[in-house]
Amino acid sequence: MNAPDAYRPLLPQVAQRHVPDSLIEQLQAHFGARCSTGLAVREQHGRDESSFDVPPPAAVVFVQSTEEVAEVVRLAAAHAVPIIPFGVGSSLEGHLLAVQGGISIDMNGMNRVLAVNPEDLTVTVQPGVTRKQLNDEIRATGLFFPIDPGAVASIGGMTATRASGTNAVRYGTMRENVLALEVVTAAGEVIRTGTRARKSSAGYDLTRLFVGSEGTLGVITAITLRIYPLPEAISAAICSFPSIEAAVRTTIQIIQMGVPIARVELIDRHSVRAVNRHSGLALREEPLLLMEFHGSPAGVEEQAQTVQQIARDFDGRDFEWALTPEERTRLWTARHNAYFAGVQSRPGCRVITTDVCVPISRLADCLLESVDEAEASGIPYFLVGHVGDGNFHFGYLIDPASSTERETAEALNHRLVERALRLDGTCTGEHGVGLHKMDFLESEAGEGAVAVMRTLKRALDPLNIMNPGKVFRL
Amino acid sequence: MNAPDAYRPLLPQVAQRHVPDSLIEQLQAHFGARCSTGLAVREQHGRDESSFDVPPPAAVVFVQSTEEVAEVVRLAAAHAVPIIPFGVGSSLEGHLLAVQGGISIDMNGMNRVLAVNPEDLTVTVQPGVTRKQLNDEIRATGLFFPIDPGAVASIGGMTATRASGTNAVRYGTMRENVLALEVVTAAGEVIRTGTRARKSSAGYDLTRLFVGSEGTLGVITAITLRIYPLPEAISAAICSFPSIEAAVRTTIQIIQMGVPIARVELIDRHSVRAVNRHSGLALREEPLLLMEFHGSPAGVEEQAQTVQQIARDFDGRDFEWALTPEERTRLWTARHNAYFAGVQSRPGCRVITTDVCVPISRLADCLLESVDEAEASGIPYFLVGHVGDGNFHFGYLIDPASSTERETAEALNHRLVERALRLDGTCTGEHGVGLHKMDFLESEAGEGAVAVMRTLKRALDPLNIMNPGKVFRL
Repeated sequence: MNAPDAYRPLLPQVAQRHVPDSLIEQLQAHFGARCSTGLAVREQHGRDESSFDVPPPAAVVFVQSTEEVAEVVRLAAAHAVPIIPFGVGSSLEGHLLAVQGGISIDMNGMNRVLAVNPEDLTVTVQPGVTRKQLNDEIRATGLFFPIDPGAVASIGGMTATRASGTNAVRYGTMRENVLALEVVTAAGEVIRTGTRARKSSAGYDLTRLFVGSEGTLGVITAITLRIYPLPEAISAAICSFPSIEAAVRTTIQIIQMGVPIARVELIDRHSVRAVNRHSGLALREEPLLLMEFHGSPAGVEEQAQTVQQIARDFDGRDFEWALTPEERTRLWTARHNAYFAGVQSRPGCRVITTDVCVPISRLADCLLESVDEAEASGIPYFLVGHVGDGNFHFGYLIDPASSTERETAEALNHRLVERALRLDGTCTGEHGVGLHKMDFLESEAGEGAVAVMRTLKRALDPLNIMNPGKVFRL
Repeated sequence: MNAPDAYRPLLPQVAQRHVPDSLIEQLQAHFGARCSTGLAVREQHGRDESSFDVPPPAAVVFVQSTEEVAEVVRLAAAHAVPIIPFGVGSSLEGHLLAVQGGISIDMNGMNRVLAVNPEDLTVTVQPGVTRKQLNDEIRATGLFFPIDPGAVASIGGMTATRASGTNAVRYGTMRENVLALEVVTAAGEVIRTGTRARKSSAGYDLTRLFVGSEGTLGVITAITLRIYPLPEAISAAICSFPSIEAAVRTTIQIIQMGVPIARVELIDRHSVRAVNRHSGLALREEPLLLMEFHGSPAGVEEQAQTVQQIARDFDGRDFEWALTPEERTRLWTARHNAYFAGVQSRPGCRVITTDVCVPISRLADCLLESVDEAEASGIPYFLVGHVGDGNFHFGYLIDPASSTERETAEALNHRLVERALRLDGTCTGEHGVGLHKMDFLESEAGEGAVAVMRTLKRALDPLNIMNPGKVFRL
């Protein structure tokens, strides 16, 4: 890894915990070749999309069942050794780094769709199922799972980080779409939370306590999700705007009027330029909104007309419709490639990604001030946003050899988060806290609320073995 | 209270905890006449809509601010005395009964709407605000708060029980509509959870931990809610069916087709007869569905046509539309009066209300078997249901002097819950656990999950002073 000096100050100073040889031997006796201590495997499981430099876990266990997860947890607990569940490694804030050492549990062998209940619009999956796999497997039912964070993430990882993405403006996030869970606790016991009923007032909402807990309270081993009828009609549109402000004000108006838009994504001119180059497109290099409408043919038409009228009021132009699945796929591929296109626009760079979310009325203020600041910094960047939810991401493209650039980007992120909190927002809309945002969480929630979180953690994981060193300092 | 012998076996055998005179003196010194020990006041705060016979609390404190709540909690904590928040007393499962003695905190003095943010579709209220008051106060903004549990409940009580009601099929429950909370913890500290942002991945979801915790983890002192644009068009309809089965199958079809219906309520023929007498209506005395559609004029028309087609397929008849606000109010008043109309249909009776919720595909099985059982029992009953969510309520009308009837009704409820759990459902869709459903919660969630709930309770409330003796046995 490059320029470690620039990174280390961000990491909490905690000691690596001892992983006794006897534990590794026990795991190998139990799992055979599915317990690996090879450096390459450990290194692959010891990093995600963040840029922290942390030693890899001591071993990786490739589990295939809930009972195997429980067995790993019980063995690790007997030695007070940390456990870190691993999905596809697409987390952005260092969630799965072995900051205190320990064992990585690779969940990808648990990749079965356990039950599809089309008549109830529910599905139950193992955590290693990816959102893409899930949608492929249920396509014939005429149903789909809408949450789309961009990466081909695992459902387990998405549950653990309370993920959302482009469709959340209409369908909600993992918070709204997880109905029930199976979880292995820190004591190695298997519990079930929730039921397939759409609603319940039966006791504490353990389901939502585990959703977004980032592996720090237990290992999620099965997830029951809401799914939705594929809309009778879908249409997508792209519209350019003379300024980011015009695009944002259009979005605000759409939301405030209650248009049930399925997606409304902002892409700034830097992103458009990068996407054009990356994907061979010829989009006008101006801020644009990418939108999608779901419903009956008449309903989609009605939404589209309302939105076109609003966009015209803010000088939106080049309204272009994608009516066929192929055209829509092309548009959304462009959006999903924005991150990698952005990264490639500065060869050799490393990207620092931000993730704030504010009430929609504060979006223009938060976003425009942050754009001014990014422009003034001289650091190349791109900007994309799930603006219908008030959520957006800057990608600052820094030279990894330059600690100045790193510090500038971190300072920009710091001011961005402060601004979002001042405007009643949150320090992370969908990426989670991980390692990077522990101080921000304390600024946002206050010491009292974080103290409550710590109390919960200590109560449910007294040995502090479940993904320790994340979310908050104990 | 009548026939106490029939009730006592349902109550857990716990001792009343000692409330020292010195605590009452401290409260009276602090709150003056707003701390009452008068028997009538205590008795009014020591009962709800359940039928348990429990001694009233030792005193009632009428608070006016968060700081006053914190003061009561700190004083009570110093003596390890229980605290029970009181809203309007409309809970159905004994939530606010002082089973271990202690102090009732009357929240009705905290009845201000603290902030309305129409552009963000959010509102922040004190817990004593009722849903009716809230909608009256925000009417001029063109927005409304949809959750409607029937009773003119307080928002604090609705939050504490994770309430829902007729509109939940479209707008969700309190789980989906509470964005943020202010809570006084068991230590008398004030914390805030969540923000006004529509989504967040910032740490544990404390908001949803307190939603539905029935006062056992802290006292809720402010609630930030999502609100919605009043639909451009609303229409309501009533439709009779030859059988409950036909009405239920119509509902299932509506939901499975993804029609965004706002309300779909089942009323059985017993309820219709009672409502006709109570409200002077002349509805056909057959099972009927009461429906409401929200959207644009064209969208509402489209939904209505789809639903009419489905209803025709199941021999629905007498489709009657209520297009004006007055006609709609008449229809919904009839629905809301169903409970009281049902109770009045057997003079001198007491009602035992049930509350299960199952996945929609199981609704017909669950409901029809339960109807057969109720008919066979000989106990008069009525049946209403938020059937779009798979949630329904029997009201068994028992002679309070007859322990046989009481036992029969309890046995019916027991079998109903067992059936719902067997069909992947929950023992309470919206009323909560309270005193009555502690055993059912254990059957539903399993010992392991309830053990986790107990661990959370002990960690956050080590003295067990927050509404003790509810939800589960410690």
